[in-house]
Amino acid sequence: MVTVGVIGGAGYTGSELLRILSRHPQVKITAITSRAEAGKPVASLFPSLRGHTDLCFSDPADDGVLRACDVVMSATPNGIAMMQAPGLLAAGVRLIDIAADFRIKDIAVWERWYGMAHNCPDLVAEAVYGLPEMYRDAISSARLVANPGCYPTAVQLGFLPLIENDLVDLSSLMAAAVSGVSGAGRSPHVPTLFAEASESVKAYNVGGHRHQPEIAQGLAHMAQKPVDFVFVPHLVPMIRGIHATLYGRLKDPMVDLQALYESRYRDEPFVDVLPAGSHPETRTVRGTNLCRIAVHKPKGSDKVIVLSAIDNLTKGASGQAVQNLNLMCGFEETMGLTDIALFP
Amino acid sequence: MVTVGVIGGAGYTGSELLRILSRHPQVKITAITSRAEAGKPVASLFPSLRGHTDLCFSDPADDGVLRACDVVMSATPNGIAMMQAPGLLAAGVRLIDIAADFRIKDIAVWERWYGMAHNCPDLVAEAVYGLPEMYRDAISSARLVANPGCYPTAVQLGFLPLIENDLVDLSSLMAAAVSGVSGAGRSPHVPTLFAEASESVKAYNVGGHRHQPEIAQGLAHMAQKPVDFVFVPHLVPMIRGIHATLYGRLKDPMVDLQALYESRYRDEPFVDVLPAGSHPETRTVRGTNLCRIAVHKPKGSDKVIVLSAIDNLTKGASGQAVQNLNLMCGFEETMGLTDIALFP
Amino acid sequence: MVTVGVIGGAGYTGSELLRILSRHPQVKITAITSRAEAGKPVASLFPSLRGHTDLCFSDPADDGVLRACDVVMSATPNGIAMMQAPGLLAAGVRLIDIAADFRIKDIAVWERWYGMAHNCPDLVAEAVYGLPEMYRDAISSARLVANPGCYPTAVQLGFLPLIENDLVDLSSLMAAAVSGVSGAGRSPHVPTLFAEASESVKAYNVGGHRHQPEIAQGLAHMAQKPVDFVFVPHLVPMIRGIHATLYGRLKDPMVDLQALYESRYRDEPFVDVLPAGSHPETRTVRGTNLCRIAVHKPKGSDKVIVLSAIDNLTKGASGQAVQNLNLMCGFEETMGLTDIALFP
Amino acid sequence: MVTVGVIGGAGYTGSELLRILSRHPQVKITAITSRAEAGKPVASLFPSLRGHTDLCFSDPADDGVLRACDVVMSATPNGIAMMQAPGLLAAGVRLIDIAADFRIKDIAVWERWYGMAHNCPDLVAEAVYGLPEMYRDAISSARLVANPGCYPTAVQLGFLPLIENDLVDLSSLMAAAVSGVSGAGRSPHVPTLFAEASESVKAYNVGGHRHQPEIAQGLAHMAQKPVDFVFVPHLVPMIRGIHATLYGRLKDPMVDLQALYESRYRDEPFVDVLPAGSHPETRTVRGTNLCRIAVHKPKGSDKVIVLSAIDNLTKGASGQAVQNLNLMCGFEETMGLTDIALFP
Repeated sequence: MVTVGVIGGAGYTGSELLRILSRHPQVKITAITSRAEAGKPVASLFPSLRGHTDLCFSDPADDGVLRACDVVMSATPNGIAMMQAPGLLAAGVRLIDIAADFRIKDIAVWERWYGMAHNCPDLVAEAVYGLPEMYRDAISSARLVANPGCYPTAVQLGFLPLIENDLVDLSSLMAAAVSGVSGAGRSPHVPTLFAEASESVKAYNVGGHRHQPEIAQGLAHMAQKPVDFVFVPHLVPMIRGIHATLYGRLKDPMVDLQALYESRYRDEPFVDVLPAGSHPETRTVRGTNLCRIAVHKPKGSDKVIVLSAIDNLTKGASGQAVQNLNLMCGFEETMGLTDIALFP
Repeated sequence: MVTVGVIGGAGYTGSELLRILSRHPQVKITAITSRAEAGKPVASLFPSLRGHTDLCFSDPADDGVLRACDVVMSATPNGIAMMQAPGLLAAGVRLIDIAADFRIKDIAVWERWYGMAHNCPDLVAEAVYGLPEMYRDAISSARLVANPGCYPTAVQLGFLPLIENDLVDLSSLMAAAVSGVSGAGRSPHVPTLFAEASESVKAYNVGGHRHQPEIAQGLAHMAQKPVDFVFVPHLVPMIRGIHATLYGRLKDPMVDLQALYESRYRDEPFVDVLPAGSHPETRTVRGTNLCRIAVHKPKGSDKVIVLSAIDNLTKGASGQAVQNLNLMCGFEETMGLTDIALFP
Repeated sequence: MVTVGVIGGAGYTGSELLRILSRHPQVKITAITSRAEAGKPVASLFPSLRGHTDLCFSDPADDGVLRACDVVMSATPNGIAMMQAPGLLAAGVRLIDIAADFRIKDIAVWERWYGMAHNCPDLVAEAVYGLPEMYRDAISSARLVANPGCYPTAVQLGFLPLIENDLVDLSSLMAAAVSGVSGAGRSPHVPTLFAEASESVKAYNVGGHRHQPEIAQGLAHMAQKPVDFVFVPHLVPMIRGIHATLYGRLKDPMVDLQALYESRYRDEPFVDVLPAGSHPETRTVRGTNLCRIAVHKPKGSDKVIVLSAIDNLTKGASGQAVQNLNLMCGFEETMGLTDIALFP
Repeated sequence: MVTVGVIGGAGYTGSELLRILSRHPQVKITAITSRAEAGKPVASLFPSLRGHTDLCFSDPADDGVLRACDVVMSATPNGIAMMQAPGLLAAGVRLIDIAADFRIKDIAVWERWYGMAHNCPDLVAEAVYGLPEMYRDAISSARLVANPGCYPTAVQLGFLPLIENDLVDLSSLMAAAVSGVSGAGRSPHVPTLFAEASESVKAYNVGGHRHQPEIAQGLAHMAQKPVDFVFVPHLVPMIRGIHATLYGRLKDPMVDLQALYESRYRDEPFVDVLPAGSHPETRTVRGTNLCRIAVHKPKGSDKVIVLSAIDNLTKGASGQAVQNLNLMCGFEETMGLTDIALFP
């Protein structure tokens, strides 16, 4: 049994953490903070949790209780966790940041994309990128885990077997990905209103999205050399889900990609390689920590298409954070993460 | 004033034709056929047309009235128009086929993709592909117009300026496109039920979609040489709309793409090139005959991304058919096609 | 030809006004104001209007151009029109307020529900309630029209034939109505985010909704005596549309309700009484100024159920405002309001 | 540990049963039948179950394995369970029918509404109506349980405290309820296509819905006398969820309804009475077995409004069936039914 604190529990990643942790058999949530909601019962903000928790939000300034936790999970906007990390780590707490503060190793790149100075570059160097399918061992012993972004999780898991095995032209990589609207968070803005986002599709940030450098860093790490990666995110009218369609030129079109993917992910509890010819649907991973993947070779072409589907709030954020927590604490990796997606 | 007959009016392209034609100032609809609905008032099947039409569906077997039309527009499933075309043309009727019977010039290719023998290959040779932005003059004098598919309209208009001007590597072309569910038609099937298609995204037919050869034919015609074109269609939870994200490697990354696109489409009434940095939204073209396009060059890459949005039932089907009708009859090209998209 | 100014054009009722007026053959829009968007082209805020208007938003403080209009239509939040009405009317402008400032005759009631003091009670007395099916003649000659609310339009048109003819028990009236999310306006708030409002239904303001007193006033006026009217509004996951289900106890269960409704609305261009046994669907009135109504008598009961469907932004707001404009200016009542709903 | 067979597992109630039962700690599913899908792995039809079950559909004609079960749960269309019930019961199996075959005690009424002759009227007499909040003890010892319909569950739980305590005028009862589209089942029909059911609302079957007599029977049983109950169901664009808005005239407007409801449901694990002034949202019960209820007294009226929200497939069908299974088998009533609704 470990004690866990959640910082910034009033948004979508926070509420998803609470949904998962409140039924986790080895976790006791001892604090959940929200500046705006301090003092209120969690269940008054999230009626779906009525009957499942008696917690109240507390003020994040009141950080003694956080420092007493075994693990703190931070679900705040970007730029907050880096302010709290030094103190928490000094107090012996292990930290999982679900935001982006510790994901990008090149501080200058991070500062350019996130528009602020970094508070603790040394901790960026120490932080382990929390994609268990790549860094499981390092995560297990980490003090500080940088939980990956939602798009980066779907895209990296999709490209991983190809790039690890030097099978694609690194100058030809593209991902066209779509996200449900919850990916934009719970702060109200016009473009994410129902009346704006329903019955429409658009690409956004084609000129540059913060997940592009995060993905490019990961792909380059797999390849051990730089990659030319083009990323086109889109907004579609659904609440949860990311579907990434990956494209690249194969160096050797004869390779058995189905066998490659099945082999690479055979022992991964949360990556499900579908049978040849399949198309993953986001609804089949909704509320679960799964990444479902299918790999296709278009006829008469030397290209590969990989389809990768996750729930942006679960495997793309809070579920993966709990997977990392399980690894860090020596629990069964799937503990608390065995829900079946609602159908329909 | 021309007399127009509609074959197969009980589906989505048929009802969209009726919506447009019933307010077209130079058209008198003299027949609308539907085997299944023969005898019923059109407005009883489509309550949105109550008060706008007194027409009843008639039996397509009863084709004297069709042969008396100036123009017949066929909105049937594939394989029907080719059975009726010879007789109608012999009777002096001009025919616009909104289905796929006359789109693909290579009969063997057509027969493989559509799974049937073609009834009148000679008419395929005669048919003009009804994409006015490429074939306006030929359409004007055509007896038989093959109205383009929905994806092919969005994708070809997006690639046209690049390929016409030999600006992209023809072995690098990819389109990841999403469609609203109406694209699958009105026949009821499990995957297009609300409870299946809502709150989910999936790719489909990645192994081969019928619009791939149609698009490849069009791109090859622009380039005057074969292309390697990879096509990935997706289903998203909206009723109407297609958004195509096009990818290619630029031969010369220095070219001013914005100026190129604005110049190419300056005089096109239905192609709207958005300002640099824009992202077209399908809702802004819903119910209209517009194709809205934006062109982007991702930073630090030699690739181009083109975003192209249409309404699959309007510019992608029935609206474009009316645009072709206007051209064939010498009417103002925009006649009957000036609706403004509902917002929100 | 009349000159029309629009105040508060940056919201949903404003953009719907622009969609309709920009194609109205007898209207020239000479000003459109928005404090927040002053100086920007209208089409930059509403891309669906690109190519249909060259207007720019102007500052509402700059009201000379408004005072020069023949008619001003106010689409602001509540409490703004009452500040501008005296000056505009004094300048000879006729005013249609799409907000609630002039709808409720009892000033004390208005002030309690809207939480502010009224600026010009005398003008409330003068204002004509803009429901043409009840007050057509008075509207024609009015200086100041109070355009009805969305729910009040659907509910009053549904109850009108019953109450006018003294056919229902006035202590038994109930309406359970559902609205699309656009009814909440374009200001961003958490409950109207896509991720909150999609895939869910809730009632709201059951303890008291501002449209309850407006409807009760209208029903009492029809009955010439007070009514006990219970109103339960609900939010449902659609953009546009109101569906009201009305309930009451019939004084005489033998009356031919179908004939009554057909007779009452025979000459109304925007009220469509459906055949017996029908159920109006909001999609059939989307983007139109129609109210579609069906009347049912449940078997074995002395109750009546009336179903009434409108588009909340058209017949429920801006379309009805243009209908009132047409009446005030002596134009054909349906001018500019003949769109057919998109299907599907 | 009990062995459970599922008949008709290929629809929405079947798949929901599998989702719940496959993680139920005291259930072993030994058979799942589907005539159409016999031989196929369950996970090939329902990809969300991949990794959670190895079951294959079997032919229902092959009923030896069903007769060897401790309990059979029937999720077939109406009219099937009554053919199988006599044989199963004779073999000592206990049966829970999720369809309507055993819900209505008056055989003539059932036959009129369901359009067929009943096969085993004697078993209708024996069957226990599976609403635990009313009939818990009888369910526990029943051989045959008639699981309630979705609307009837929401409506009866909402009215129960009022009627049991003789607090409402029994001639004034009305329910306006809305359902998600999954309520119409998985057989494909035009009205439940995404392109038809999205972005629209309609009432349906106002002239008579099969759940009206079921509810009227239940309310009459609570009241021990006949009731005049008007029922208006509506279809709204969501997948799962029922929201019922109940209306009645209070005999005594002074009664403390909040206290009454809280007291009546204090010990019910699946009925959650919300604080005064609340509005239940269907999303907070999605995928759960909860019924969330709020009770309101509109100001200045002698009426009561009760709001009741369930998931039509869980508390409205398969979840309640498992609740009944738990009661019949002496398990903890909430076993397998403790999921938290996804938010958002």
